[in-house]
Amino acid sequence: MEVVRKNFKETLPLIKESIDKADFFAIDTEFTGLLNGRDVSIFDSPEDYYLRVMNGSSEFLLIQFGISCFYWDEKRNHYLNDTYNFYLYPRGRPGPDRLFLCQSSSLDFLASNGFDFNKLIKEGISYMTSSTETKLRENLAERQLSYSKEKDAVRIPEENRQQIEDICTKVKNFIEKSTDAEMEINRCNSFIRMLLFQELKLRFKDEIIVDTKVLENKNRILKVIRKTADMDDQDTLRKKKEWDELEEAIGFSKVAQMISQSEKLVVGHNMLLDVLHTLGHFFQQLPSDYESFKEFTHCMFPKLLDTKYMSSLPPFKDKLGSSVLTELLATLGEPPFSLPKIGSRKGRGYSHLDDKEHEAGYDAYITGLCFLAMHAHLARMRGEDTDRVQPHSVTLKPFLNKLFLAKTARQDSPYINLVGADPTPARDHVFHLVFPKEWQRSDLSQLFSPFGPVTVYFLDECSAFVGLDQRDQAPDVMRILSKNNRVTLTPYHKYKSGGNGGDTEQQQG
Amino acid sequence: MEVVRKNFKETLPLIKESIDKADFFAIDTEFTGLLNGRDVSIFDSPEDYYLRVMNGSSEFLLIQFGISCFYWDEKRNHYLNDTYNFYLYPRGRPGPDRLFLCQSSSLDFLASNGFDFNKLIKEGISYMTSSTETKLRENLAERQLSYSKEKDAVRIPEENRQQIEDICTKVKNFIEKSTDAEMEINRCNSFIRMLLFQELKLRFKDEIIVDTKVLENKNRILKVIRKTADMDDQDTLRKKKEWDELEEAIGFSKVAQMISQSEKLVVGHNMLLDVLHTLGHFFQQLPSDYESFKEFTHCMFPKLLDTKYMSSLPPFKDKLGSSVLTELLATLGEPPFSLPKIGSRKGRGYSHLDDKEHEAGYDAYITGLCFLAMHAHLARMRGEDTDRVQPHSVTLKPFLNKLFLAKTARQDSPYINLVGADPTPARDHVFHLVFPKEWQRSDLSQLFSPFGPVTVYFLDECSAFVGLDQRDQAPDVMRILSKNNRVTLTPYHKYKSGGNGGDTEQQQG
Repeated sequence: MEVVRKNFKETLPLIKESIDKADFFAIDTEFTGLLNGRDVSIFDSPEDYYLRVMNGSSEFLLIQFGISCFYWDEKRNHYLNDTYNFYLYPRGRPGPDRLFLCQSSSLDFLASNGFDFNKLIKEGISYMTSSTETKLRENLAERQLSYSKEKDAVRIPEENRQQIEDICTKVKNFIEKSTDAEMEINRCNSFIRMLLFQELKLRFKDEIIVDTKVLENKNRILKVIRKTADMDDQDTLRKKKEWDELEEAIGFSKVAQMISQSEKLVVGHNMLLDVLHTLGHFFQQLPSDYESFKEFTHCMFPKLLDTKYMSSLPPFKDKLGSSVLTELLATLGEPPFSLPKIGSRKGRGYSHLDDKEHEAGYDAYITGLCFLAMHAHLARMRGEDTDRVQPHSVTLKPFLNKLFLAKTARQDSPYINLVGADPTPARDHVFHLVFPKEWQRSDLSQLFSPFGPVTVYFLDECSAFVGLDQRDQAPDVMRILSKNNRVTLTPYHKYKSGGNGGDTEQQQG
Repeated sequence: MEVVRKNFKETLPLIKESIDKADFFAIDTEFTGLLNGRDVSIFDSPEDYYLRVMNGSSEFLLIQFGISCFYWDEKRNHYLNDTYNFYLYPRGRPGPDRLFLCQSSSLDFLASNGFDFNKLIKEGISYMTSSTETKLRENLAERQLSYSKEKDAVRIPEENRQQIEDICTKVKNFIEKSTDAEMEINRCNSFIRMLLFQELKLRFKDEIIVDTKVLENKNRILKVIRKTADMDDQDTLRKKKEWDELEEAIGFSKVAQMISQSEKLVVGHNMLLDVLHTLGHFFQQLPSDYESFKEFTHCMFPKLLDTKYMSSLPPFKDKLGSSVLTELLATLGEPPFSLPKIGSRKGRGYSHLDDKEHEAGYDAYITGLCFLAMHAHLARMRGEDTDRVQPHSVTLKPFLNKLFLAKTARQDSPYINLVGADPTPARDHVFHLVFPKEWQRSDLSQLFSPFGPVTVYFLDECSAFVGLDQRDQAPDVMRILSKNNRVTLTPYHKYKSGGNGGDTEQQQG
């Protein structure tokens, strides 16, 4: 089900109901870019990885959020899904006017996969962090206190007097002779509107209410509304309207809060960026301290499960060729696996045949499907007789609260452990190398040939990390290669501890 | 006429022709945001103004360029217009993958006025600066030199051998038994594609050519093309394709270069940002030295005319209520002015009745119309008998090469003079004031009440620039107010010359 600005308010109770009845959720998000600055290196520790991704992704915007709520149907003995696909766009007033980064290739990719940017900007639901919400609520409450106080009237300048007088005459005619409920006053600049607000209120307070209306093309006009017996006074109406506008600006953050407050299992595929954007855009700025990040994440989402991590462990690891989401889905549909039967009520969910790849709602749904297929496989192996997910079961325990680190997985630091110590892979076999600018990959392989094959990660055109495939060769490297005066070699740990300034200063490069 | 990616190449000769025959151009542009960081202050000098706008706008993207080419029809004795509206989006490969800023309110505004963001991202024409173009041309020429050299073949790993062998068999069947001109090989990752490139070239060099094809959804597949007698060899085809792709990535920059090389009159309305974005995106990064900026601009566009500046001078100043473009157009259609007759060939121009406000092509067109109406008014006053524009005439001289500075115009530094000294308005009546946080505007007025009314420009919640409306009162201010120990007062010039660090450090605030 697609949710945009115009149906958000009416859909909110439905979403609440879906969240309340669900056993678990699968989520997926889309953003305006991936990474600003240098990429992670394959030798990064989980902490390095977090810091680089956190610093490099925070200025992009989250523009689509998909949530698939899986709830159990006792009668049919299988899951049903309620899936929502939200277009998200934080507009200004009363929220802050946002400056955000885009990456041209990312928007290009999304557009090629059917993402509707016109819908995004015209109909996207607003959002903000909890801290911004608190500040805006306080500001508004304070500002509204002053409305009842009388203010000094602005003097009408000589050159505007005739225009104001003409309009007042028109309004008087409207009050006395028309039967319409409203009249509009257009083609006034903001100063004239301000003078009119003041003058019309002074003259016709008991007969009319004056309001500003924003047109389709963003021009503003004044609306004069005939007062009826049951109508609140101008200040009360204005206050109510301002609170309504603030609620609309808080928008999707309310859904994020519901998901968090449910404390239920949240499943994602390769979900590190989804988690960082969800926390950073709807809750608060991400901490630059790694341990605080882990605590904060676990506190907001106490049960996270990354299907990419799950698929990288036995018994799945050897049976799954690719862990790209759609390919995973295809493999999990063939023996020894099988996709579970999932239904939905009309108009409320997806089917895996919908073919809406890279739409957040659809990707969330098939992530849930993959999770259920892997879960069912484990349950069958353990001889359990139900496909229903028990988040506290031992079956799921090894996979919980570990965020997959795609780019370092091959180098054995494959995850962030949110509830304990991270893996601390040895880096004794890795070296930082500075070499002549004209060197190619083959020159590096040649240099290290006495120690067997190497894995190279280029930092720029004259430096790289080099890892030995045969780790036992490491002790000889420094002794033998430090004599070569065309290169500068530093053991990885020494380089990272910053003997030469580390690599943090290159981050924005 | 709308120009996008798919009709750009074929339209380029038409555009060239329009530029060649035009007497002058009117331009307009749209961007993804206005200003990052602090706004200009009403007391800024032209140099301050330039630096602030240059620093605060360079990370936004130029996404639409409108050019209206006005050429004289001798037979009908009036102008015709060829107008082009370009959607512009610099995509990656072979151009750089761009990171750019957006301002949520700006995109919102554009969307409300009918801007099509899906068209932008899917069909926008690419562009790049001249320096990037030069670098990419050099890189490509250098890279292509190595194509003919033999490279070490990558060994096919054991686990991929069967897959490669199977595909080679299929290709062999295609060569020997099929009559199709092409076959496609899909579902291969980039490593397998690389192995296949190598292996197929080795085995079937004389029979086929192997190419990569990017699908609609950005997935890549291999295309095997049956070689015919007149077909170039694989390397020649590849080189040609790479140059074609580079030309496509240079894209709109070619049009910008044509406009520059024509050295003709370029008219814009409130055109400072249009000029900065045009120079910064299609030519080179803007200089941070103000005099260099003036020289660079004058060198690229030797005849610029800003209709907003023109309308702010006699004989127009007192007769034009508002200089907002559409309102200017309305006023210039009424006596003592009149809109000139303008035609166009079918499908090549706009009419002012098109009502496409804020589409760059339309705004460019009506800017040209306003210019012609003002020009005709001047010509009539001077008793000239033609409406045709003579860029070198004395009629236009007072208005040439002056860029209007909207926000400081009220404070008498209304323009940047690209070909001489800027106005240097006195600032002896302006003071920098630091005051208690709880103070309001009325407290500031109260403080300065001995010297008459003041104009206040707030810098933040406890500092502001204050200008005396009665400038002759200035000499007494320091003497009298410096005794007040709740405020800190500094004369404007002393503040700007940086006794206290100036305000440059607050720019990103």
